[in-house]
Amino acid sequence: MSDNITVRGFVATEIRSSTTPGGVATASFRLGATDRRYDRATSTWVDGNTNWFTVQGYRQLAGNLGCSVKKGQRVIVVGRLKMRSWEKDGRIYHAAEIDAESVGHDLMWGSANFTRTAGAGT
Amino acid sequence: MSDNITVRGFVATEIRSSTTPGGVATASFRLGATDRRYDRATSTWVDGNTNWFTVQGYRQLAGNLGCSVKKGQRVIVVGRLKMRSWEKDGRIYHAAEIDAESVGHDLMWGSANFTRTAGAGT
Amino acid sequence: MSDNITVRGFVATEIRSSTTPGGVATASFRLGATDRRYDRATSTWVDGNTNWFTVQGYRQLAGNLGCSVKKGQRVIVVGRLKMRSWEKDGRIYHAAEIDAESVGHDLMWGSANFTRTAGAGT
Amino acid sequence: MSDNITVRGFVATEIRSSTTPGGVATASFRLGATDRRYDRATSTWVDGNTNWFTVQGYRQLAGNLGCSVKKGQRVIVVGRLKMRSWEKDGRIYHAAEIDAESVGHDLMWGSANFTRTAGAGT
Repeated sequence: MSDNITVRGFVATEIRSSTTPGGVATASFRLGATDRRYDRATSTWVDGNTNWFTVQGYRQLAGNLGCSVKKGQRVIVVGRLKMRSWEKDGRIYHAAEIDAESVGHDLMWGSANFTRTAGAGT
Repeated sequence: MSDNITVRGFVATEIRSSTTPGGVATASFRLGATDRRYDRATSTWVDGNTNWFTVQGYRQLAGNLGCSVKKGQRVIVVGRLKMRSWEKDGRIYHAAEIDAESVGHDLMWGSANFTRTAGAGT
Repeated sequence: MSDNITVRGFVATEIRSSTTPGGVATASFRLGATDRRYDRATSTWVDGNTNWFTVQGYRQLAGNLGCSVKKGQRVIVVGRLKMRSWEKDGRIYHAAEIDAESVGHDLMWGSANFTRTAGAGT
Repeated sequence: MSDNITVRGFVATEIRSSTTPGGVATASFRLGATDRRYDRATSTWVDGNTNWFTVQGYRQLAGNLGCSVKKGQRVIVVGRLKMRSWEKDGRIYHAAEIDAESVGHDLMWGSANFTRTAGAGT
């Protein structure tokens, strides 16, 4: 079973909003998550590897991503990890996607003004 | 080892801000997280048990919680779970605390305007 | 929403096996999970707070817990956290339970011989 | 920051044990984790996407993986996700690795006999 993951990182692209042929609103962006580890030799925190993900949101979350999240911001993403690969013109492409269930600005890095969507969650 | 947990829920109290004797800013609030499960009999999602946590933030996160998060809002909390118990006046009290590393408004439920703290993360 | 958690710790009691009135096999044990953190002053890892949980398993998992897990062993537990409280004889009792979906011996601490249950997962 | 993830799945290869030039024992295997979702139309659980990971263990965990885990078994893996890509002969290769901190046989699928490593964790 593939479980939920939580990733904290920075938004590396603008939000791309779209609508599926079936009429479902979608939004997506690239997320970079850089490992931080404590280096005992120098007694400082240093950057490690950066993982890249394509984050996908749907429906109400898609709408709120489009009007709330900007390139460069720090966010928390909760969702399901999906590793995909496909072939095109004889080359194989790979992507690590997260089907997001929740996304939020990380308040460790700034402040935020929140406005509830009318009818959300009912 | 006690690992990080991610909890999504609603803020049940106003934020209580304070400063430790050592001068560290703190902020805390109560978080309610209600399980949702799909009931096959009625083909609907129903509410299950609600878990209650006391969420604690420190330093920069504490400051941003104080000016960003209000009672009733939906948030994502990432941090370490700490179960505590103590005695007072002959009674034993228990609390489930989360030492928060990151908190964010859940954009599944609304939109947010984010302003980065000057100097954050440097 | 209350999400899955993963806790690594030690089994603090023998396994208690039982059957519900409806005929479902159950098994439970107490789990202690002690935080480890790196102390920069002494350059060593030190023990922190210990969280206590009651782990509950059902059906096939319950049977395998009963014949596999012993007091003192190190395990990984994946499941849903449920905080419960109740009153008895004028006192309030609290418990942090984990409804386990998966449990395994932690191979960081020892080796294991695994035998698949006939018909498991079919 | 890149957080810990927990993945439950099946071991798709035999364990490959090795030693680094610096003398550290390592073990690795391929893990397949298949999503299961409840299909409301047919009222059954169906298989979804399968994520593939290369799981890496070190030191004591590596030794115990080598003598405990076999192809086809069900395991729980806790560790850090690392997405890597590299070029060879003009082609780009990708891999999703998990630096494992803990691995255990999933007792939802079978029973296990555990033997603690002498001196483990001291």
